[in-house]
Amino acid sequence: MKPLKVALLGCGVVGSQVIRLMHEQAGDLAARVGAPLELAGVAVRRLGRKRDIDVDPGLLTTDAESLVTRDDVDIVIEVIGGIEPARSLIVAALSRGKSVVTANKALLAEDGATLHEAARAGKGDLYFEASVAGAIPLLRPLRESLAGDHVKRVLGIVNGTTNYILDKMDSTGASFTDALEEAQTLGYAEADPTADVEGFDAAAKAAILAGLAFHSRVRADEVHREGITEITATDVASAKAMGYVIKLLAICARSDDGRSFGVRVHPAMIPRSHPLAGVREAYNAVFVEAESAGQLMFYGKGAGGAPTASAVLGDLVAVGRNRLAGTRGPDESTYADLAVHPMGETVTRCHVALDVADKPGVLAQVAELFAKHDVSIQTVRQEGRGDDAQLVIVTHRATDAALSATMSGLRELDIVRAVASVMRVEGDD
Amino acid sequence: MKPLKVALLGCGVVGSQVIRLMHEQAGDLAARVGAPLELAGVAVRRLGRKRDIDVDPGLLTTDAESLVTRDDVDIVIEVIGGIEPARSLIVAALSRGKSVVTANKALLAEDGATLHEAARAGKGDLYFEASVAGAIPLLRPLRESLAGDHVKRVLGIVNGTTNYILDKMDSTGASFTDALEEAQTLGYAEADPTADVEGFDAAAKAAILAGLAFHSRVRADEVHREGITEITATDVASAKAMGYVIKLLAICARSDDGRSFGVRVHPAMIPRSHPLAGVREAYNAVFVEAESAGQLMFYGKGAGGAPTASAVLGDLVAVGRNRLAGTRGPDESTYADLAVHPMGETVTRCHVALDVADKPGVLAQVAELFAKHDVSIQTVRQEGRGDDAQLVIVTHRATDAALSATMSGLRELDIVRAVASVMRVEGDD
Repeated sequence: MKPLKVALLGCGVVGSQVIRLMHEQAGDLAARVGAPLELAGVAVRRLGRKRDIDVDPGLLTTDAESLVTRDDVDIVIEVIGGIEPARSLIVAALSRGKSVVTANKALLAEDGATLHEAARAGKGDLYFEASVAGAIPLLRPLRESLAGDHVKRVLGIVNGTTNYILDKMDSTGASFTDALEEAQTLGYAEADPTADVEGFDAAAKAAILAGLAFHSRVRADEVHREGITEITATDVASAKAMGYVIKLLAICARSDDGRSFGVRVHPAMIPRSHPLAGVREAYNAVFVEAESAGQLMFYGKGAGGAPTASAVLGDLVAVGRNRLAGTRGPDESTYADLAVHPMGETVTRCHVALDVADKPGVLAQVAELFAKHDVSIQTVRQEGRGDDAQLVIVTHRATDAALSATMSGLRELDIVRAVASVMRVEGDD
Repeated sequence: MKPLKVALLGCGVVGSQVIRLMHEQAGDLAARVGAPLELAGVAVRRLGRKRDIDVDPGLLTTDAESLVTRDDVDIVIEVIGGIEPARSLIVAALSRGKSVVTANKALLAEDGATLHEAARAGKGDLYFEASVAGAIPLLRPLRESLAGDHVKRVLGIVNGTTNYILDKMDSTGASFTDALEEAQTLGYAEADPTADVEGFDAAAKAAILAGLAFHSRVRADEVHREGITEITATDVASAKAMGYVIKLLAICARSDDGRSFGVRVHPAMIPRSHPLAGVREAYNAVFVEAESAGQLMFYGKGAGGAPTASAVLGDLVAVGRNRLAGTRGPDESTYADLAVHPMGETVTRCHVALDVADKPGVLAQVAELFAKHDVSIQTVRQEGRGDDAQLVIVTHRATDAALSATMSGLRELDIVRAVASVMRVEGDD
C-alpha cells in the first residue's frame, strides 16, 4: 500500500515525541489508518542543533516553505506555534490540497477563519485536537459527539501552570509568588510566566472552545481576561474556610435567551464538591453542561510532549483515513453565528470581602447599596471586631455591570475602609 | 435539500426523547448534518399505548421489519434493546445499505461481529456511542482520538445503579439491602435488579470497551464477572477506615508483555484520592491510562432518556454527514486480535480480613502461607483482641490464581476462624 507522506514542522518538545511515536507505533498506525505513514521531512530552525530524538539528518530542512508545498506530501503537522510563519505555512499547505494537523491555539484563536477557509478551498482537513487541553479528547467530543445536543456552558481548567500554582496555594497556604517560584523550579512555569498567569493561554483556548460549543466564530480578543497575579494567600484561605477553592476558569456560557454567549477567563471560587475542585497539580479538566446530556467532565494532562503528541497522532490517524477514503472530516461549523456579548451582560455570583468600621448601621448602608444596583445578597457574615471587622458577602446572580457598579459604590462609602477581595463564584447553580 | 429519512425502532424512555429532540432541534440538526432529518416511521410493540411524547399516529407501525427495509429509509435508530428482534432488524437494515445507530450494549457484546460484518458488507455505518456510559462521549474518543496511542488500562464505573447503591452504603453506612431498596424507590434500580447488581450490564459494557481499547473482538461471556450483592456494611466501613472506597469497576487491562489482556467486572477498593472515588450517586466515569496521553477521565450521566438520546443524536449527525459525503466512519478495528487471558493470570492487589485466634504465632503461620503462594504482603494490621481478633492484610500485586490459592489455604488453617472479606485493590499503582 502506498504510504501517506507526512511533513513535520517543528522538532521541539512535541515534535520529537511525534517522531518517536510515529516510529515506535508504525505498525499500529498503518493498521489503523489503512496505509503506512512515512515521514517526508522535518522543518527545523537550525540543522546542527542537538535534539532529544534521533532523526535521519537527510529528513531535516530549514526550508519549511518548500517542504509543505512538496507534491509528494499528503499531510502537514504544525507544532512550531506562534502566528508567523505558522500561518503562512499552514495556508500554503492547505491551498495545495494537503491536510493539516496543528496544536497551535494562538493562531487558531487569532485567525482561525483564514485557516478554515484555506482548508475548505483546498478540500483538505484541518484538525487541532492538541490545541486545547493537550491529551484530553475534548474537541472531537464537542464537535462530533455533542453535535445532537445544545451546549449551555463550558467551564474549563485549561492551563496547567496556573492550576499548579493555585493548587499549591490552596494545599500549602503559599503566596502567589512562592507558588510561582516552585512551579518555575519544577518546569511547570516558564521564566516569563505572563502568557500563563495573565490568562492569555487560557483565553486562546476559551475562544476555540466557545466557537465549537456554540457553532460560531470567536477570536481571542473577544475573550474577557483576568489573570491570577492578584490572588493572595488570604483570598485562598477565605475561600477554603467557606468550602470553596479558587481556580482559573475558562468559561463559555450561552445567555438565558440563547441568542448570544459570553467568553471569559478569570479566577473564580467553586464549591469543593464540584468535580472541577478535585483537579490537582498541573492537570486540566473541562466541565460541559448540555441540555440533554447533562453534566459531563473530561480530565487529563493538558500539556507535555508525549500527551500533546498523542492528540496530534489521533488527528493524524483520522486525517489519514479521510484521505484514503477521499473524504473530509466535519468542517468548521459557524452556522449559528451567535454574538459574543459584552462582559457587563455576563451573569455571575460574587464573593466580596469588605473591611468595615465596626459600628451599628454598617450592614444597613452596605445592603442598601447592593439593593440600589439590583444585586441581591445571598449570605452575609461578619468576621472580627473593631478595626479588624470584615463583612463577607455572597450575592445571588447579577450582571457583571451591576456587580462592578456595586463595587465602585462600596469603595466610595465612608464606612468601607477597603474592598479586600472580590471574586466571582461559579459552579454552584 | 433532500432530507435524510430516519426510522426509529422503539418509543420508550430513550426513543421518545429522540423524537422530541429531532423535533425541537430540527433546524440545528439540519445545519450540522447538511440536510434535514425526517422521521420516516416509528416501530412500536402496540399501537394504542399511551406515550410520553406526541407522535403523528401515521408514523407508528408494529411492522418493524418492513420499516427498516423500506427503500426510502437512510438511517435506522435501534433503541428497543435485547438480542432479538433487534439483531435481525439491524442486520436487515445494514444489509440493505442503511446506516444504523444503536444503544444496544447487550447485542453488541453478544454478537457484535455479525453486526459489524453486515455494516461492512452493506457499506453503511454502525455507530453505538450510547451503548456505554450513556451521554458520556467515550467510544468516539477511544475509537478516534486515542487512535494514535496505546491504551494500557481502562477502569470504569459504567453502571449507575450499583454506583448509587455503593455510594449510599459509603455515605450513610446502609446495608446493601437497604441501599438497594432506596435505589428502587427512587427509580435507579429495577424491580428485578439482577442485571445491574450481578454485573451483567457492566460486563457487556466492559466487552465493548475492551474491544475498542485493544483493537480486538471481545464477547460478554469472556468477561470475568462478580456482582456487589455480597458486600457488607462492614466491608464498606473497613475500606473507609483505610482511606478507600468500594466501587463496582469494569476493568480492561493489557498484560505486561502486551500480548493479551484481561476483562473483568468486580467490586474493588480504590483510594479516595483517585479521580474515580469522587464519582457519586448514579453518575458514570471511565478512567483511561494510555502510554502517551497518560491518565484521562470521562465523567457524566450513564443512563436516562435525554442523556442517552443525546448520544444517539450525536451519532445520527455523524452518520448523516457520512451518508451525504458518500463515505463511512471508521470501521470496526480488530487488527490486533489479542487474546483475552484467563482471570487467573490477571494481576491485582488484594485486601483480606481474617478472623483469627489471638495467640502467638498466628501471623507467622499466615505469612508463611502467603509466601508459599508467592504472594507478597504490603501491610498487615491486627485489630481487636481475643475472640474478636482480626488480621487485615493488603498484598502487593500477584496473579489472581495465586491469590485464590492463598485464600483457599487460609480457609483451611486452624488458626483462621473465617476469611471475613476479600476485596481487590485497584487504582493505586
